[in-house]
Amino acid sequence: MNSDQLFNQIRSKKSFLCIGLDSEFEKLPAFFHQNDHPQFDFNQAIILATHQLAIAYKLNTAFYEARGAAGWQEMEDTVKFIRSVNNDIFIIADAKRCDIGNSAEMYARAFLDNLGFDAVTVSPYMGYDSVHSFLQRQGKWVILLAVTSNKGACDFQFRKLEGHGELLFETVIKTSFSWGTPDKMMYVAGATRPEMIGQIRKYVPGHFLLIPGIGTQGGNLNEVSQHGLNSKCGIIVNVSRSVIFADNSENFAQSAYLKASELQKTMELVLKKQRLI
Amino acid sequence: MNSDQLFNQIRSKKSFLCIGLDSEFEKLPAFFHQNDHPQFDFNQAIILATHQLAIAYKLNTAFYEARGAAGWQEMEDTVKFIRSVNNDIFIIADAKRCDIGNSAEMYARAFLDNLGFDAVTVSPYMGYDSVHSFLQRQGKWVILLAVTSNKGACDFQFRKLEGHGELLFETVIKTSFSWGTPDKMMYVAGATRPEMIGQIRKYVPGHFLLIPGIGTQGGNLNEVSQHGLNSKCGIIVNVSRSVIFADNSENFAQSAYLKASELQKTMELVLKKQRLI
Repeated sequence: MNSDQLFNQIRSKKSFLCIGLDSEFEKLPAFFHQNDHPQFDFNQAIILATHQLAIAYKLNTAFYEARGAAGWQEMEDTVKFIRSVNNDIFIIADAKRCDIGNSAEMYARAFLDNLGFDAVTVSPYMGYDSVHSFLQRQGKWVILLAVTSNKGACDFQFRKLEGHGELLFETVIKTSFSWGTPDKMMYVAGATRPEMIGQIRKYVPGHFLLIPGIGTQGGNLNEVSQHGLNSKCGIIVNVSRSVIFADNSENFAQSAYLKASELQKTMELVLKKQRLI
Repeated sequence: MNSDQLFNQIRSKKSFLCIGLDSEFEKLPAFFHQNDHPQFDFNQAIILATHQLAIAYKLNTAFYEARGAAGWQEMEDTVKFIRSVNNDIFIIADAKRCDIGNSAEMYARAFLDNLGFDAVTVSPYMGYDSVHSFLQRQGKWVILLAVTSNKGACDFQFRKLEGHGELLFETVIKTSFSWGTPDKMMYVAGATRPEMIGQIRKYVPGHFLLIPGIGTQGGNLNEVSQHGLNSKCGIIVNVSRSVIFADNSENFAQSAYLKASELQKTMELVLKKQRLI
């Protein structure tokens, strides 16, 4: 998928919503706990209820790996199910991998070739050769961590570098800018720091930004949109727990639909206001 | 396991060798390719041939994830097998994970609680709350990336920060120094930059360093020992491909034994020279 195709999907769904399938076993409605494939069964219901409102799904690998090989299989089955329901949807492996050449190649094979994800999140600490392999896949994307939504982001990402007084995350963006085109690279920009989103947008006017931290983590949708939008929308806003765990009863999927629908409506207004639809 | 127990194992085996089970399917001797559990079968033979020469095994998750749920299962079975052969050996998940609070907790559960690894490698980019969960497990370790052995390490790890002109990796070490004691934290220090190992040793005199990059990547064992040793040895040197893929014939396990034995003998000389044994 390229950035035009992504923008077309955004226009047609009037949404730039990504739903994070952080389907932690313990947090699933209790009636799933006895199922043979609890995470997959839960995800199926959420996907069926929301796929017309979301342009992307993001699977954080941690929640599947916590259940070992069985969890890994349910992650794999979830990706296949999303494809079977809607082949155009953008599917992100939120794996935050970070390793040298031959290991990075193995991760690219795992997530992009074998599991069929469209994109993988990658941590920049190990530099270009830890990102290169992911960029070699036709139509696939790297989403590089720039500014994350957690408190610990302050420990290193905002350290000032010698010279022009750039912050580390700015150096990460400026250095990696030439690694991949806006058709292959995105950046993670946490919604809990909307002013930083504006800063990042200046460095990468044409790149998509993946914005987590709306909802449970406290980020504000209108504010991040104001700072992040570009002429092709250019932002994908991820919401996880406040959609998928909106309700723990047997109405969980309907509640997820209602929550996703509310977000989509806000996004539609934002897109209209910016004359993007 | 604490650092004294690790040092005891080093003294008793006269070795500070970690063998990296980077058991990439395509690189296994061809006669494994038709097996139901090729990576596990290969690992078993390598472990049986080398467990008296190595104090640790390191499994890079990339090589198992590349084979999906089946690979994950073989990683799990490998850890169990190591424990069954030698319960004292130190087992490292070279996962280089990096995620916020609740996701990090899931990774800690996956690797330290469920799979039973002793340690996990973690990338520092997201700061303290991405490391915290791993430190909460009794007798378990975090191995934080400081200086890696790849070329891309130069992209960010050696950037100079404003103020005292510290490099980023130095800030990572100094900031994280108080996060965990030398009984819970180690640092990755790539053998391809031995002078940096000496630099790191100054900041963390009592911490163990995990040193990859000997062998295929070109690092020199005597040189890294000279820079890295402390009064409890304090270094674990990882060798992967040049041990496990020393020979692709049916003598592969014996060749791995010979290569590991050669490394152990060099280490024994180093330990004797430093009067550590």
